Amino acid sequence: MASDQLSLLRRLRIRSHDLLEAGTSEDRLSVVVDCFLIALIILNVIAFSLETVESVDAEWGRQLRWFDVGSVIVFTIEYLLRIWSCVEIPPLRHLKGWKARLRFAARPMLIIDLLAILPFYLAFLGFDLRVLRVLRLLRFFKIARYSPALQTLGQVIANERHALYGTVIIMAALLLTSSTIMYFLERHVQPDAFGSVPQAAWWALSTLTTVGYGDVTPVTALGQLFGGLVMIFGLGMFALPIGIMATGFSQEI
Amino acid sequence: MASDQLSLLRRLRIRSHDLLEAGTSEDRLSVVVDCFLIALIILNVIAFSLETVESVDAEWGRQLRWFDVGSVIVFTIEYLLRIWSCVEIPPLRHLKGWKARLRFAARPMLIIDLLAILPFYLAFLGFDLRVLRVLRLLRFFKIARYSPALQTLGQVIANERHALYGTVIIMAALLLTSSTIMYFLERHVQPDAFGSVPQAAWWALSTLTTVGYGDVTPVTALGQLFGGLVMIFGLGMFALPIGIMATGFSQEI
Amino acid sequence: MASDQLSLLRRLRIRSHDLLEAGTSEDRLSVVVDCFLIALIILNVIAFSLETVESVDAEWGRQLRWFDVGSVIVFTIEYLLRIWSCVEIPPLRHLKGWKARLRFAARPMLIIDLLAILPFYLAFLGFDLRVLRVLRLLRFFKIARYSPALQTLGQVIANERHALYGTVIIMAALLLTSSTIMYFLERHVQPDAFGSVPQAAWWALSTLTTVGYGDVTPVTALGQLFGGLVMIFGLGMFALPIGIMATGFSQEI
Amino acid sequence: MASDQLSLLRRLRIRSHDLLEAGTSEDRLSVVVDCFLIALIILNVIAFSLETVESVDAEWGRQLRWFDVGSVIVFTIEYLLRIWSCVEIPPLRHLKGWKARLRFAARPMLIIDLLAILPFYLAFLGFDLRVLRVLRLLRFFKIARYSPALQTLGQVIANERHALYGTVIIMAALLLTSSTIMYFLERHVQPDAFGSVPQAAWWALSTLTTVGYGDVTPVTALGQLFGGLVMIFGLGMFALPIGIMATGFSQEI
Repeated sequence: MASDQLSLLRRLRIRSHDLLEAGTSEDRLSVVVDCFLIALIILNVIAFSLETVESVDAEWGRQLRWFDVGSVIVFTIEYLLRIWSCVEIPPLRHLKGWKARLRFAARPMLIIDLLAILPFYLAFLGFDLRVLRVLRLLRFFKIARYSPALQTLGQVIANERHALYGTVIIMAALLLTSSTIMYFLERHVQPDAFGSVPQAAWWALSTLTTVGYGDVTPVTALGQLFGGLVMIFGLGMFALPIGIMATGFSQEI
Repeated sequence: MASDQLSLLRRLRIRSHDLLEAGTSEDRLSVVVDCFLIALIILNVIAFSLETVESVDAEWGRQLRWFDVGSVIVFTIEYLLRIWSCVEIPPLRHLKGWKARLRFAARPMLIIDLLAILPFYLAFLGFDLRVLRVLRLLRFFKIARYSPALQTLGQVIANERHALYGTVIIMAALLLTSSTIMYFLERHVQPDAFGSVPQAAWWALSTLTTVGYGDVTPVTALGQLFGGLVMIFGLGMFALPIGIMATGFSQEI
Repeated sequence: MASDQLSLLRRLRIRSHDLLEAGTSEDRLSVVVDCFLIALIILNVIAFSLETVESVDAEWGRQLRWFDVGSVIVFTIEYLLRIWSCVEIPPLRHLKGWKARLRFAARPMLIIDLLAILPFYLAFLGFDLRVLRVLRLLRFFKIARYSPALQTLGQVIANERHALYGTVIIMAALLLTSSTIMYFLERHVQPDAFGSVPQAAWWALSTLTTVGYGDVTPVTALGQLFGGLVMIFGLGMFALPIGIMATGFSQEI
Repeated sequence: MASDQLSLLRRLRIRSHDLLEAGTSEDRLSVVVDCFLIALIILNVIAFSLETVESVDAEWGRQLRWFDVGSVIVFTIEYLLRIWSCVEIPPLRHLKGWKARLRFAARPMLIIDLLAILPFYLAFLGFDLRVLRVLRLLRFFKIARYSPALQTLGQVIANERHALYGTVIIMAALLLTSSTIMYFLERHVQPDAFGSVPQAAWWALSTLTTVGYGDVTPVTALGQLFGGLVMIFGLGMFALPIGIMATGFSQEI
């Protein structure tokens, strides 16, 4: 009978591994579980956002908090099942139970899973730091598990990282040069907006990225002339990473 | 004589099918019909826009409404001729008349054709919902029929949809993270603009897409520092879909 | 002696053709002439811009007008020499003098050359329309002759014109749909900014192209939600033409 | 003993050359030196920016100036070591000592190295021009030495320079045409913002680059219609350089 029970547990473990980790589109229940978890993740994020709206919080705050409790319970069960059933994952099979589970729990996705539910339990232990509550946002990153394309994107970014570092250096050089020059050109006329290099950097960044808030703009003739140059260099700041990414993609495929 | 009349109808049906569906650049009349319909579509859209301008509506409202009546008549004739002559389309030829027509009428382009004229007739039957009048805009989408390049574009988007889903997830994650962090950084200083996460999302979206209205901007030092980071991540939000599309195009060709 | 003079003319004509049309980097004088003309074109454009600045015009107006007279004389000589020497261009050699010259004068670049100097002479004949003076701007387009890369760019745009038409249709559809919906969402709250579809189109276009002036922004919750969607679609409006151009370039090379 | 000392110097020179110029990731000390110099460069730039913030300068000005002195000493030692050890660089080995050093000192990176420390020493000699102090910014460009990807980027830009010139001409033509036309359309209504072509160019550039400050916008119906066209052409100004860069990258790799 003990053997029967064990084999039942074993079968449950294999099943829960299939449902959570190795689901294919043929396994109906696995698809349902995936869709349920994706929907729960999205609802959690919406609930998190709505809680910060005062009028919504006044009327629906109670329900939103109960929804949070429910979600944490589901995500905790999901986390525990993943940890429990991970010994069925081929590369971990040859390891001992706890060794496999520790190695599995150290994977980035699993750490995100844990951090996303941790603040709720820490609150019970008295550690109710407000900052920790932001960790609830990590629940959204759980969704990364369900998009194979994200892995490709990540791969492309990783392959092109040297070129992207180069772009970052160019951007930093452009940012620094333009904010310094603009600081010298405009500081006497607009001491509030261009009174220091970091302040001028706010303008320079919003111009180089072509965001262009317009809360701060050069007003002197020389400032506008130089500002025009900065705008044109901003085009280059777009062209470089986009060219790099486009090439990276075509190589990956 | 009945046979003559039938064959005349048959010939008319083939001709109208040639004119509307299978026109080549050698068939002069087909080109004229196409150009007339394209011009009518564009004039309809312009008329629709102008009707909402009060000063134009006061002076030309009557004429615009008569133009609308005329257009509906033309589009109705076009629709009926398409339905009538569709049995000449090769893949539908082997079907029975009504079966072929029903299957043809269920095509997306034909549904758009119908919806674009339906509100006019519903108004006669007393169903004059204002919302329905927006369906008149669908007339513009009839133009899609005349651009073979649109099909290629649609194909590229369809092929790259997995990569584009990945991009949407990244964009949602960036949007969520930046609006939440900015909410914590600016809510005490600007409760009107950053008083909740959805409000902060308005700023975050306008920054990440590099639109940059500037109606709402961070004012604290920390807020501006973080805002600069969000701007730079916005560049990435451009680079990803553009890189994907560029690769998709080069593969398609 | 007549024969000598003729052959001198002939040699002059060949020389002026070499200098203006068929210059290589080895022909020193041709390079000097090219640089002189490019510099004159750029100075003309700067002069044109400066004339519209009142303070500059008050002080330097006289000099700028004399510079204009001088430029017109140079450009007229250039134009006449080109027309005169065009019979030396290989594909025109087999034609009779005036036939070759007429065909040559009908080339786009030569028409630009003519239109760029015409307003000056028309002013002598009493036709001094202000609008005609804008034609002076065409002098800048003369510079196109000196950049072989522009021809490649033009070629790419010409090759991809069908795809670009498709993009224009998508852009028009996006513009129309977003301005109409925004008109319905915001017209009661902001009748000055969203009082008609064409007015709303100003907002929609500035958002879809990610320019984002911020002079007009949605203020209702629904309007901001829909505005966010429009911003994201604006990313697509970038991705399409850029993807098309990138592919076009890689095919051209 | 003299020979021993010489060979010690020789060995030191080889070592310092290895550390500064020919460092590989296996040479631990070389990596440490590189990281130290990169960190010092970044700290210098931050210090330069912070010095311009009045509140920071009041409190930490003394420390920042001592940090500057320290940095100049380190960079001077680095510069002298590079000059001294450059005779170990293979292509310079066959030259005589001073000839090799002069040729080496004329390299762009070495000139930047020198200019970045020069203002400090000039101040001792009485030449304390404020403008010279901006040269301190050049310290940031020393970082280019540590990113091999920057060389690839530079290579791509150099290869595509003809196409990029073409883009610049198109941009200039667009800028000129749009600012002139807008000047005619808006100058009577907004003489402060569109009173001359250069003033209108500020609007045109901010629109064509899609920066869109919104400090100056057209208000007349015709002005807004034309402004919309300019926005759409702005998309093309992005598409061209990005398409060129993307193609350049894929060719380079």
